[in-house]
This record gives sequence, C-alpha cells and structure tokens, in this order.
Amino acid sequence: MSLLLTGATVIDGVSEKAVNGQSILVENGRISAIGRRDELPVTAVEKTVDLDGKFIIPGLMNANVHMFVNVLFETLVRYEGSYEDLIVEAAQVALNAGMTTVFDTWGPRRALMAVRDRIDRGEIVGSRIRCAGNIIGFDGPFSADFDGRIPGIGSSHFVDRVNAAWVENTGRHLMWMTPEAVGEEVRTYIENGIDFVKYASNEHGGTAAGAFIQFSERTQRAIVEEAHRSGLTAQSHSASVEGLRMSIEAGCDLVQHCNMTGPTEIPRETLDVLAQGDCGAVVFPLTDNGLEILKESISDLEWTMWKASDSNCRNLIDSGATILLANDGGILAPEVMQEPMIKGTWNGLPEEEALGRLATGHFIWLKAMEEKGMAPMDLLHAATRNIAKAYKVDDDFGTLEAGKIADMVVLDENPLQSAENYRTIHAVIKDGALVNRDTLPERPLLTAELPAPLEEEARYKRFLHHGVRLPGCPTCVNETR
Amino acid sequence: MSLLLTGATVIDGVSEKAVNGQSILVENGRISAIGRRDELPVTAVEKTVDLDGKFIIPGLMNANVHMFVNVLFETLVRYEGSYEDLIVEAAQVALNAGMTTVFDTWGPRRALMAVRDRIDRGEIVGSRIRCAGNIIGFDGPFSADFDGRIPGIGSSHFVDRVNAAWVENTGRHLMWMTPEAVGEEVRTYIENGIDFVKYASNEHGGTAAGAFIQFSERTQRAIVEEAHRSGLTAQSHSASVEGLRMSIEAGCDLVQHCNMTGPTEIPRETLDVLAQGDCGAVVFPLTDNGLEILKESISDLEWTMWKASDSNCRNLIDSGATILLANDGGILAPEVMQEPMIKGTWNGLPEEEALGRLATGHFIWLKAMEEKGMAPMDLLHAATRNIAKAYKVDDDFGTLEAGKIADMVVLDENPLQSAENYRTIHAVIKDGALVNRDTLPERPLLTAELPAPLEEEARYKRFLHHGVRLPGCPTCVNETR
Amino acid sequence: MSLLLTGATVIDGVSEKAVNGQSILVENGRISAIGRRDELPVTAVEKTVDLDGKFIIPGLMNANVHMFVNVLFETLVRYEGSYEDLIVEAAQVALNAGMTTVFDTWGPRRALMAVRDRIDRGEIVGSRIRCAGNIIGFDGPFSADFDGRIPGIGSSHFVDRVNAAWVENTGRHLMWMTPEAVGEEVRTYIENGIDFVKYASNEHGGTAAGAFIQFSERTQRAIVEEAHRSGLTAQSHSASVEGLRMSIEAGCDLVQHCNMTGPTEIPRETLDVLAQGDCGAVVFPLTDNGLEILKESISDLEWTMWKASDSNCRNLIDSGATILLANDGGILAPEVMQEPMIKGTWNGLPEEEALGRLATGHFIWLKAMEEKGMAPMDLLHAATRNIAKAYKVDDDFGTLEAGKIADMVVLDENPLQSAENYRTIHAVIKDGALVNRDTLPERPLLTAELPAPLEEEARYKRFLHHGVRLPGCPTCVNETR
Amino acid sequence: MSLLLTGATVIDGVSEKAVNGQSILVENGRISAIGRRDELPVTAVEKTVDLDGKFIIPGLMNANVHMFVNVLFETLVRYEGSYEDLIVEAAQVALNAGMTTVFDTWGPRRALMAVRDRIDRGEIVGSRIRCAGNIIGFDGPFSADFDGRIPGIGSSHFVDRVNAAWVENTGRHLMWMTPEAVGEEVRTYIENGIDFVKYASNEHGGTAAGAFIQFSERTQRAIVEEAHRSGLTAQSHSASVEGLRMSIEAGCDLVQHCNMTGPTEIPRETLDVLAQGDCGAVVFPLTDNGLEILKESISDLEWTMWKASDSNCRNLIDSGATILLANDGGILAPEVMQEPMIKGTWNGLPEEEALGRLATGHFIWLKAMEEKGMAPMDLLHAATRNIAKAYKVDDDFGTLEAGKIADMVVLDENPLQSAENYRTIHAVIKDGALVNRDTLPERPLLTAELPAPLEEEARYKRFLHHGVRLPGCPTCVNETR
Repeated sequence: MSLLLTGATVIDGVSEKAVNGQSILVENGRISAIGRRDELPVTAVEKTVDLDGKFIIPGLMNANVHMFVNVLFETLVRYEGSYEDLIVEAAQVALNAGMTTVFDTWGPRRALMAVRDRIDRGEIVGSRIRCAGNIIGFDGPFSADFDGRIPGIGSSHFVDRVNAAWVENTGRHLMWMTPEAVGEEVRTYIENGIDFVKYASNEHGGTAAGAFIQFSERTQRAIVEEAHRSGLTAQSHSASVEGLRMSIEAGCDLVQHCNMTGPTEIPRETLDVLAQGDCGAVVFPLTDNGLEILKESISDLEWTMWKASDSNCRNLIDSGATILLANDGGILAPEVMQEPMIKGTWNGLPEEEALGRLATGHFIWLKAMEEKGMAPMDLLHAATRNIAKAYKVDDDFGTLEAGKIADMVVLDENPLQSAENYRTIHAVIKDGALVNRDTLPERPLLTAELPAPLEEEARYKRFLHHGVRLPGCPTCVNETR
Repeated sequence: MSLLLTGATVIDGVSEKAVNGQSILVENGRISAIGRRDELPVTAVEKTVDLDGKFIIPGLMNANVHMFVNVLFETLVRYEGSYEDLIVEAAQVALNAGMTTVFDTWGPRRALMAVRDRIDRGEIVGSRIRCAGNIIGFDGPFSADFDGRIPGIGSSHFVDRVNAAWVENTGRHLMWMTPEAVGEEVRTYIENGIDFVKYASNEHGGTAAGAFIQFSERTQRAIVEEAHRSGLTAQSHSASVEGLRMSIEAGCDLVQHCNMTGPTEIPRETLDVLAQGDCGAVVFPLTDNGLEILKESISDLEWTMWKASDSNCRNLIDSGATILLANDGGILAPEVMQEPMIKGTWNGLPEEEALGRLATGHFIWLKAMEEKGMAPMDLLHAATRNIAKAYKVDDDFGTLEAGKIADMVVLDENPLQSAENYRTIHAVIKDGALVNRDTLPERPLLTAELPAPLEEEARYKRFLHHGVRLPGCPTCVNETR
Repeated sequence: MSLLLTGATVIDGVSEKAVNGQSILVENGRISAIGRRDELPVTAVEKTVDLDGKFIIPGLMNANVHMFVNVLFETLVRYEGSYEDLIVEAAQVALNAGMTTVFDTWGPRRALMAVRDRIDRGEIVGSRIRCAGNIIGFDGPFSADFDGRIPGIGSSHFVDRVNAAWVENTGRHLMWMTPEAVGEEVRTYIENGIDFVKYASNEHGGTAAGAFIQFSERTQRAIVEEAHRSGLTAQSHSASVEGLRMSIEAGCDLVQHCNMTGPTEIPRETLDVLAQGDCGAVVFPLTDNGLEILKESISDLEWTMWKASDSNCRNLIDSGATILLANDGGILAPEVMQEPMIKGTWNGLPEEEALGRLATGHFIWLKAMEEKGMAPMDLLHAATRNIAKAYKVDDDFGTLEAGKIADMVVLDENPLQSAENYRTIHAVIKDGALVNRDTLPERPLLTAELPAPLEEEARYKRFLHHGVRLPGCPTCVNETR
Repeated sequence: MSLLLTGATVIDGVSEKAVNGQSILVENGRISAIGRRDELPVTAVEKTVDLDGKFIIPGLMNANVHMFVNVLFETLVRYEGSYEDLIVEAAQVALNAGMTTVFDTWGPRRALMAVRDRIDRGEIVGSRIRCAGNIIGFDGPFSADFDGRIPGIGSSHFVDRVNAAWVENTGRHLMWMTPEAVGEEVRTYIENGIDFVKYASNEHGGTAAGAFIQFSERTQRAIVEEAHRSGLTAQSHSASVEGLRMSIEAGCDLVQHCNMTGPTEIPRETLDVLAQGDCGAVVFPLTDNGLEILKESISDLEWTMWKASDSNCRNLIDSGATILLANDGGILAPEVMQEPMIKGTWNGLPEEEALGRLATGHFIWLKAMEEKGMAPMDLLHAATRNIAKAYKVDDDFGTLEAGKIADMVVLDENPLQSAENYRTIHAVIKDGALVNRDTLPERPLLTAELPAPLEEEARYKRFLHHGVRLPGCPTCVNETR
C-alpha cells in the first residue's frame, strides 16, 4: 500500500512557511518521505496523484465535538438501539469536511467506543474518534443539566435507561463525595476504555445569573491525577474565571471553551499562567458578523457576556496561549433545525455563522479567529498540531513529517492567504488512503431531508395550531398549549 | 335643588336632529323641561349655567364594564379587604369620562353591590353601577376560566376564598345539573340583590381552536326564564356563532360581544333574527388602525378571527341590529400595564387603540364604529338609548326627556360631526348635579403612578434579571425561570 | 368448508333459555342449522367437534374499545410507521378473549381501517374491527383534549403529524362552524370509509368541576342526520346529564358511557326516554370491590361521581334500557403499566377490577353488572345481541341463528349460572373456523415483558433518582425534577 | 435599676456544676454579683424576686434563626411595607421562648436592622437580634435558589423589588467574579451595618442529586478575610463534605448545619480539624422519634441522607467539636401551616418533632442531642456559651458572670436532669429586666388564627375544588389545575 502525491505546495505544520513543488510518499498508512520528487527514495508506487497547484496540509482535527449531540427526547426514543448509526453518520460528515481526527468530549460511551473501534479496525470509513464518554459530574440528558422537562414526560424506565447510559458511575452524586472517593470512581470509569478524561469544573445547566463550581480544587486535582496515573490526558468544562483558573491549577492538559467566562474577562494573572504553562486553551469564537447579528436580539446582560467572550479570544491570542480549534460540533436533525421551539440553539444565528455545525463550524472558527488577529500559520496549528500536542497524540498526528500517520487535506487554494480557503477541499487522505468523499455520509439519517407534511397535517396546522388564546380577553393569562 | 342649563345645542336621543339654542331645566334630579328658554316654566332656579356653543347629550352608558377587573393574584392579595376602594376609583374614572351609568357584567358581587348602594344613596360620587356579579357558569379568578396557574401557587385558603367570593353558587358545577336545578340556583343568586343576570353561553377560557358551549339550549332557556320571572333582564357571554344563536333563541335581552365569533362570520339567518327581534347586540370593534397594527404581530389563524369580528360589526350595522356600546372597560394597575409578561392584554395595541381602557375605550368604540359606517345618530343611540332599552331602564335613562333622570354630558364640539368630539367633555351632570370632575378619582390606587425602582432594584435587574441561559449551549433546552 | 359442533348446551341469544344437546352446523362461515343432531340436514362435514358438556354462546362483542389506546408520546414515537402492528396485536388479544367483533370508537383511522380490511380479507387473524376513526370534535393526542404537555416538548413536526393523523378534518375547529358546515365536514370524513360516526356531545378533557357541551343540539342533529344519510349509525361521547339527553334527542343509535354523568344521576325523564326508544345505553360499571377500593383513595367529590355512576347503572337496569357492554378496552405497554407517573390510569384499581383492560375488562363488566342485579340472559344480550342491534349489524351478528355468521364462544361452564363463567373459554370460533388461540398474539409488542434494567441503570436510580429536594429546608418550595 | 434574684440554683455556664442557694444581683442591666445572699454587696435593691427551688441559666441563644422566613409570595405581597411588624412578632415569640439573643442568618437586611435597633434602644421588647442580611451568593426569594415559580407569576416589578431587597449587591452574579472583586462587594455590604457575614459555600437550591460548590476556595478565603478585616465574624452555608471542609479551611468562625452533608458522612480528617480548631459547628438534629416517622415516608436515598446527618451529629459529639444550637427557626403563618401544598416543610413531621419552629424548635434540638449522647452541661453550653464565643460576643453574653449583661432564664425544673426541663420556663430576664411574657407577641399577625371559611367558601370547596380529572379516562394524562 503506497501512494505518491506530487507537485503540491506543502504546509507541514512544522516549517515556518509553505514549500512549493513538494511530493509526499506514503507507505503503509504513514508518511515515509517528503521532498522534491527527485529527492524521494526510488520505490514502486502503487498510485501516484498529481497535485500540481494544490496545497497539502495535515489532516484537520477538532478538539471538541459531539458525535451524538441530538439529545432531543424524540430522537433518543426513535434511535434507541441504533445510536451507532448516528455516530457513524457524524464520523463520515466530519471526515468529508476534512477532519481526520475528532475528540468527542461528551456522549454515550459504549456506542462511541464501538464506532471508534470499528473505524480504527477499518471496518467502516469515518473520522478517527477519541472519546471521553460522560463529563465527570454531569447528570444525564434528562436532568437539570440538560433537558429537565423530560422526567415527568417520559416513562421513568426510558428516562433512567437513557440517563444511565450517559452517566454510569460519574454523575452529580460525585459532588457528595470526598476527593479520594471521586478519584476511585474516575479510575473505574477509565477502565471502561475511554481515551481521555473530561470533568466539570463549572456546572452545565448554568444561567446568566452565575455558574456554580462543580468540584472543589482538591477534588479537581484528584480527578486529574487519576487520569494522568492511567496515562490519559485530562480536561475540564469551564464557564467562569474561577472555574478556568481552578482547572489550570488542577493540572488539566486542556480546558474547554476558555473564552466563555460569563460577563467577566479572564484576568491577566490567568492569561499569564496559560501562556507560560502547557495547558491548551480551547476557544469558541464568533465572527464579527455573528456578533453583530446576536447583538440585535439579546439582552444587555447577554451582550456583556458575548463581548467578554470575544475579548477573551483576543487577549488569549495576544498573550500567546496555545489555542485549540473546537466547536461542540454535532449534527442536529432537520426536524430540530426547523423547530421554532429550540431554534435558539446557536443563538438563532444564520447557518453561515453558526459555529456549532459539524460540517462547517471549523471553517467558521478559522474565519472568526482570523478576524480577531490570529496569524495564518497559528490558525493552522490551532486546527492541527496544537490539538495533537494537548491530547498527547503528537507522535502520530498533527504535522506532516516522515513517520507520522498519513492524514492530510488537499486544498485548491492557499489557506495561509485566507482562512476562507480551508473550505476549498480537493481531497482528504486518511491513514494514507484517499477518502471517497462523494459517498459520505453513506446512510443519511439525521442529515436526510424531512418528508413534506401530509395534506391532512397541513390542514391541521392551519385550523388548530397552537391553540392560541381567543382574542380580546383582558383577564385571561392562563397558558394554553 | 334646581339647575338651569341655557343656550346649548341639545341632542336628546329622541329627535332626528340636534336642536340649537335649547335650555334644560332640572329639578330634584330629573329633567323637568327642555325647550327655548322662553318656553320653559318660570321658576326660581338655584343655579344657571350658560352653555352657549356647547352640546348636551344624554349621559353616556356602557353596556359591559368590569369595575374590578384586576384579577392579578398580586392585586387580589394586596387589596383583600378593600375591594370597594378599587371599585369606587373605577366608578369615578368612569364618571369623569362621561359615563353616568355603567353595567358591570362580571365581578365580586358583594363589593360591587355595596359600592352601587353607596353611590345610589349619594354617599359617594361615581358612575351609577348596575351589576350581575358572577357570570353564571364561570369558575373563579383562579381557575381554568381565568388564571389557572394560581392554584398550586397561592395558598389554598386564599385561592378558595377568592374564587368563592366570585362564584358563590353559580360556578362550573352547574354544568352537571339539569335545567331545572340550574334555574333554582339562579333564583337563589338573584335573591342576593343583583341587577341583571349574565350567563355563559360559551366557555370563557377558550382558545383559537374552538369554543365550547357551556349550557344546553334547554338550560339557557331555564336561566333566562328565571331572570325574567324575577323582573330582571338576561344576557349571555357568547363566543361562537352557535353560542350567539342559542343565546338569542333562549330569549336573552342582549348578548355580549356578538361580533366575537372566532373565524366564522355570523350567518345571515342569525343577523336577520337579531335585526327583527329586540335582542341588543353588544359589539367590541377595533379601529382600522388597531386592526392594521394587530395584523403585523399575529398568526394567520388569529387574523382570520379578527377579520371575522370586523365583518360582523359591519354586517350588524347593515342588517339593522340594535347595537350597544361596550368594551369590557376596567382599570389595570400601572404595575400590570408595564408588565412585559401580560402586555399581550389588549393585544399589545397602543393605548390610543386599546378598546378595553375604562377611561378611553368608549371613545375608541365610537371612532371604530364610525369608521365601519355607523351613522352619527346611531352612534349616540348605541351609547345611550339602546343600552337603556336593552337593560329595561329606559323609563329613567338613555334620552333627554322631561321626567327622566338628569344625566347629561356637555361637549365642546358636535358629536354628530365626528365621533372624536365625544372626547371634548366640558361637563358631566349626574342626577341633576354638576360633577366636580377635577377631583376624580378622589383616591387613586390603581391609577396612581408606580414608584420609581430603588437603586438596589435597578442594580439587581442589571445583574441578575431573568436568569437567561448561558450563551452557546447546543444541548440545553431546559427552561430556567 | 363445513364444521359440525355437537352435544353442547346452546344459548343462542334468541331463546329464553339454554337448550341442551344441541348441534350446530356451519357452512361457508355461516350457521346453516341448529338443533338436535338428528334434526340437522345430512351433509358431508369436514370437521366434527364434540362439545359434550360445553356451552355455546354467540361470539362476544364490545361496543367500545380502542385498538390503539397507547397514546403516550414515547410509544407514538417508537411505533411511528408501524401502528398497524400494534392494532393487529390488540385484535388478536381481543379475539383470544372471546370477542369476535369489536367496535373501535377512537383511534388513528388509516391504520385501523387497514387492519380491519386485512382481517376481513382473512390475511391475518384477529377480532373483527369496525371503527369510527376520530371522535368528531376532538383535537389530537397532543392537545388539551388528551396530553396537553407534549406541544412544547415534542418537535412541532411530530406533534402536528400525530395530531393530524387522528384529527384530519374533524377537530375542535368544528365548534366554530354552523350546523350545516359541520354536517359537510362529517360527510367528507365518512367518505374515507369509516364504519360509524362518533361525535363529542361533551368535551373530553373535562374535570370534576363540570363538563362542557361540545356541540349545540342543532349541530348534533346535523351530525346524526349526516351519518344516517350515509347509512351509518351515530353515537356520542357523553359525560353529563345534559350531554346524554341532547345525544338521545339528536337521534343517536347508541350513547357511550351513559352512566358517567358526573355527580348528578340521570333524571327519570331521560331514563324513560332511553327505555322507550331504541337508543343503546353503553355503561362502564365498576364492581363492588372496585368501588370499595376507590373510595379509600379519592376525594369526597370524586366519590360522589362514582356513586352517581353506580346508581345510574342500577337505574338503567331497572328502567329497562337497552344496555351494551363496553369498557374503553385497550392495551397499555408494560412500561406504562409499571409507571408511577400515570399509574392512576383506571384509578389505581388492582388488575382484577380494572375495567379498561382489553383482555379481561369485559369479564369485569359482566361481573359488575351481575352484582348490580342484571339478569343472566340480559348480561348475555348486553355482550352480543344488543350491540349488534345498536350498531345495525344484527342481520349477521349477535345471536346464533341459521343464516348468521358463525361467530361463537364455547365455554366450559354455564354463563347463566355465574358471570364468572364467561372466563372459562374453551374455544373461539370466528367466521365458522376454530381460532388457534395458543398463538395469539402472534407478535407481542405492547404485551411483551419489559427487559430487566441494566446494572448501570439500577445504579443510576439508586444514586440520582428524581433529584428530590435536600432535606430540611424551610423555604424551598421550588420544584426540581 | 437594680434587681435581686434570690434562693435559686444557678447554672452559670462556667462552673462544672449547678450551685444551690445562689442569689444574683443585677444593676443597670448587667450582673454585678453572684453568690450566696450574704456574700453579695449590700445595696439598695429596687426589686427582689424569690426564686427558691428554681433554676437560673444564662439566656438562651440561637445560632441560626430567620425572623422573616415566610417568603411565600402571598405573604410578601400582603405584608409589603410592614415587614418590621412580622420581625417584631418573631422577636417577641423568641424572647417568650427563652431566647434572649438570636442570630438571624438570612433575611431582608433593612427591616431586620431596623427592628434590631429599635429593640437595642429599648423602644420595643423582643429577643436581641444580630443579623447577616443576605447570604453572600444567594439570589432572592423569587429565584432558582428559593421559589423559582414566582417569576412568571408575579409582576416583574414586584419580583424584582423583593429580590433586590434581599440580594442587593450580593447575589449569584458574584460567582462570575474574581476573588478580589467578590471581596470588594462584601466590604460594600458590610458597610451597611450588618453584624456578621454569612456566605454560601454550597448552593441553596440543591437536590439529593448533589450540591454544587458556590465559591472557589480562594473566593471563600477572600470573603472571610474581608469580614475579619471589618471586625466581623464569618460563617458559611454548607451542604456537603467538601463544602464543609472548604469553609473551615477558609477560616470561618462557625459553619451552619455541619451535619447536613448529603448521603456522605463527614470524614475523620474534617472531624479532627473541627475538634482541634475553634470553628463552631452548628448542627440540625432530629429526634429519634422524628427520624422514625420520616423513615416511613421518604425514599431510600433520602433516608441515607438523614442517616448520615444523624451519624454526623453523633460523630461531632464524640470528636469533641464545639457544637452550637440552631434550627433555622422562624414563624410560618397558619395559612401556610395548614397548606397541603407545602406541608412537606419540615418533612411532614408532627409539631412535637418539627425542629424549625421558632417557639419550640430549640427544645427539640436539646432533646434530640440529649438522645444522641451529649452531656447535660454540654447541651447548656451549646445553647449559650458556645454560640457567644463563636460569634465573638462572649464578653457580654453566654454565661452568668459578674460584668456580663443580665440575660437569664428561670426554669421550674433542673435542665441538667432532663433536656425536657428547658421547657419549664418560669421567667425570662433580659438586660436585667423581667420580661412580661404574658403579653408576647403583642400583636399577633402570623401567629394569629386563620378566620373560619365563609359559608360560600365551604360550598365552593365542596363543589369545585381542585378540578380533579373526570374519573375513568384511560388516555388522559393532562394536568389540570
């Protein structure tokens, strides 16, 4: 199994600059040599691809995705027993969009690991998945941490079954425990075969009024130590300046959405610690246009929070922190995407600014951070090398170097000229093989179109929809559904 | 006690036209003569008022007000034990606005009757009140008929106490009963001293999806017969074409908000019955401008309903029905008026189009019906004579004729030229006495200004208000309050 | 295809008494002769069954079942696209329990009709279904008429799709229409191929506080006339004494759950009309033991209602009304049956008194009415002949007579001795063929066992279940889920 | 102003034992001497009281009360503008029950301070109040921390006004801030004149699923330092083993309800730190009988929590921690006390075991801790000296010593024989004066009886109450209010 790519401009993630007229020889899934064609070893190559005028970059990575994010009650009922199908679909959407490796930071552990292993064994095509399972400390999808309305609506059998599949032994009840006892539970959970540990430094279900601390500093340290003892990296879900600081001090290898700290900007002291240490800083940036649109529809308090998150991105760039691309990327079913009720997801931003989409959100990230002043090569590193290092997989991934696994993206246009050019994907190569992108996803489920409404459904909507109140009543404040 | 009004143009509600240069002699609270000054009997007059250039019309009436409409939980708690104060305030606001008699068609019976009697005895100044107490068949303010959220929030003692004060023996449980048994309960309720009977032909808590029938035709007849047997008039709350038709067939003397029939216009057959019989047709019209504003903010289905209500008004004019002015007029506290939560009350219309305001809604009614093509003199009748006839008090009220009670409004401008001129109130005379309008309401409670927020309140709002969700979470659909 | 049953005691539903030693000859699905074996025509019989000591009665019927009653949100999501499978299961459970024909009075029309036709064509085995589709005037499963919490939880696409499948053109919006317009909608609905018309005389979503009238008398007549014009029978959902009276006067062929009239007993006048006319009276009785158990757990008001429903049953027996067996029979999934949240369904009665179970409720009905004094032969008629007559299918069903379709139940014990003996089913014959009861239902879905909880689920429940409030807080009334 | 008490057994809180035949001389509000009568200085005494056979103990204290705990929406509306009246009532109930000083640890700051000052100035009689105002970090009464249903029900004006009165600058938004910024806000709040600082180590609105940490360790230290810098004591609201540990390490002078740590017992390490340091340990114990009753009605998980809280009490006794009496004591209106809806307050325990009652809860505390093995003299210290020390007011209060303020309780029976004997209050002396207990509270508001329901209210309840569902419907899961 060998492949020769010739005549491209290579941006290897190591050199300071792009190099023209390079060839890359791939053997057995790994890069065996990079250089001018005549510099490469003479070997019988099974396939040669001429990439004259193209740009080769390392396979893109994403430090925070959710291959299974569609935790709508309805979706969970409908796909119970076939979660893996949805995860496969997501892995193929991700690969098609240039991401050869994604880090899933919250989801149903068993199904995620099963798909991870099937992809790793080459049984199915898809982005390489590394996963954490549950976020240590979070309760399940049907709880105050996510959709608290479902207990009381769903059968308790189903509610418990779903929650248990996410939570196992790592839920909110860990908040009752001593640091030592939490450490033991984390060890038990690691033994299930997860790839890294993510825990809650701040609560998930928080509001603009403030974000609770989930675990004391001592407990956070106990969790991180337990991960490291098992050779895994550790990271936190953080949502406030104290939650962020505690995570770094606890020894996290990276911290999720560092820039989301409510209305308060990250203080200088914490910026300095980040810049000097080796803790990766994941950020979730919005584009200038996205911020502009948001501003129109939100309260002053919310705007204060978005402004702080924007300033944090800029300050992290300026301070020299190691920044990682990530976006909570996932696939929401069209049913959901068209739903007035939860349209607020991603803040009602138009699709071209919606950071959280699995297929396009990383492009929006790159554009947003380019706008905030991040240098072109730093953008590339944020999407590749920095992620590999923070997750401690840089022996295999993150740059184009001889010996590394041959994950690459071929672009039509130069990404160092404009972040927009990351969208011009010509080809994706994973494990040294060209991906047949036209076929992905092979079996669209969540990405399939919604069927058109039946005639009777349209009629029903016209006549009975919503049961809105009768007009004109001065004394009716009764809610009717 | 005698009073002589001289030199005015009199629109007496009987003649086809206004008559210039008329004088009116009032003795002992009644009109003793109308005519040119030299035609009037020579008598020693205590007070003479020169009204040269002014216009005198009969005291305005309102066929449907709620002197106590503010059934917000908070208001009912705060004013428990002093409901009468709020009713006095409303009666004075109404009188100040030219309404010498109002018909209260839903409210707390004991308090309404107490204020009615105090005004009738001359102990306090205010619009003359005639009242129905509860609407036969409706449950209390804290029920599915009004604000169904309060049971579960309020103490059950308070909830029950309030509901009982409105409902007594006339609530929803009457729907369980035979027509005969309902008749008996109505008789019991009449014996409490109410002035007329109002019952539910349609439900109150209805939605755009449809309006239930509250009582069978046989039961409706039993209620009306019981009222008539006691010498009282009967009317219904109607909200659908069938509810309207049943009310008329049951023998009602008037029907409330005939034009509110959901998305279906009143059929020709029913229009004809109304035109030929002597059942008064109350309508709640919106102005053209009000409709225009509404259209922007409501659903297609709701708009269909408002269009039908507008067509009904026009068709009732065309068909020659006896139309009555009314508007559910009441006073909402400034606290409520400024409340985002229930701002929908009167559909978010700006104040100048909000039909339901006690102080101004009747002017909006007149303007709206003028726009729909009602003749000037018919407008006057709708606000005076027609109401008096429908309520069978036309021996005393509704026109300016010798022998009738001297209730009058003096206008600066001619109301027959433009309905807007009803707003130019120069003076109000009730029971033959000039009302000292400057002092009304004597003790503003609901019409008082809200105090400005404390500094700490403003600060609280800025920092903590609403607890809106944290930005950016793709999986949070949890409601937070 | 011929079958000879010999030596049994036959209770044919026509004679006053059971007759011993009878044989029944069945040819081509119909009864060709009944009599002593030597009286029967000599013919070549394909199969002879000796039923010495057994009792043959007409196939049991049920005047009110719901083959698809499990309108839990979760169930509807899970089985979307395969409603027919659930209906087949129910039809087989019913047949196994001796019911050869059932009348489905509310459900998803298309799926019900599809299964009806497959059974009629002999493609699948099951109780013969005749169905009404929606109850004219009711909104869908996810509405104020049933589970009003789901709009706001489910995606509006799904909510509308489900509601539309039930409602089509027959929902609450008919309450807005004139009688003539409602008649037209009913005609349109009939043309879809339903077997009979059921409409709402009273609302469905009612409370103990009273039951609204859904349609005026004139509209009810229009609906019934429309049914009769199409050759269909008409019936109503009734819940109050007025709703019942109006239904009878509108010309209904039968009225559902006549005995459910809230706290008010059916007046003598209505009992007389029922006794003299030919309107069938469906009742839902509880056993003495069931009532006893209920009494312990319900409020005084509720008890008043159950007492009235019990008195109504007794008075209907005494007055000579034509009484029909029915029980809202349906299958609730084990998941639901074990659900604390909705365990109240059928009032928390133990299974042996739970009237609404499809497999057993008819036996409870017979026991309950026996306790109330109904004569043994009248009980049989209520379960067979009376239903056939009311539904106007007595040419084919309801008694054992030559020429009728050969639907029979063979019992081990004499049902005229004790109603309990209806449970001793020896065999069921439908369309002249022995039913292979051992195989029914062929594919258990709702009647399958729930899987045991996973280990992690049990653990989750132990640690996190319900998120009950922390102990000891005097000021927390916040609901937490 | 001098008073001589003679002939009593004095338990002074200093000596190891009670001493018989002691006299106490009080001058100008302070104890000037204690001893045998003949040992006392000769002085002109204005009043001499013979207490032969009685027992004199220091005035009782309570380390955690809420003089204004009735944060029911209804109560707050009704008493807006007169909060002080309710606080006066509570202070008089407390004094009557033997508590001469109480520490109010959460309530409306301005009103509490106003009553505190009026009592201190001698303008009104009542227990001496020392107060913290809000708990730093908590949102207001109408928020997720307390009753989250009210926003959405109450007018936002009222909701904000009430919340602001409690929260001022100390609410949840402090969770967004850096430790330094929180410290500054605390300083601002202290400047208002509070007596001590209480902050949230754990959240208030927690559930059995776990308790969040409100503030990081660094922030907790910043708060405590700020209090100490101003000469005030600091304490925390703690609800988990980590919340407790962090509070102690942060330097708190006392920690509230140390024994409430969810299902996890306090670890040995923390017990040792408590025993060796000088941080006061408040506990909320239940009696054996109370626990027995609870066990019957709660879930296994809840029981685990109560068992842990009980073990904690015992372990704190054994480990030698400085234990303080407290009970969240407050007055709930009879309206509330009789309310089915929130009867769960204090867990449905019968009054004789309900720890939280202001008038009796301290007696229950003493009985409960006696049952758990606390020595008689330690019980007395827990109710007097330990509280004075922890709050750093032991120069003036907590023991009977010359020079201290003359707060005493005279008992009929020996409290060292049985904790029950604390109930035998013969007299209360505060600031050297006998309290006229018969007149307390002088103006009962919350402690007044509820008026009997009106006849119409009783009738309403009978007919319409609760709108419970109609019986027998298998498909209705709709909630009705």
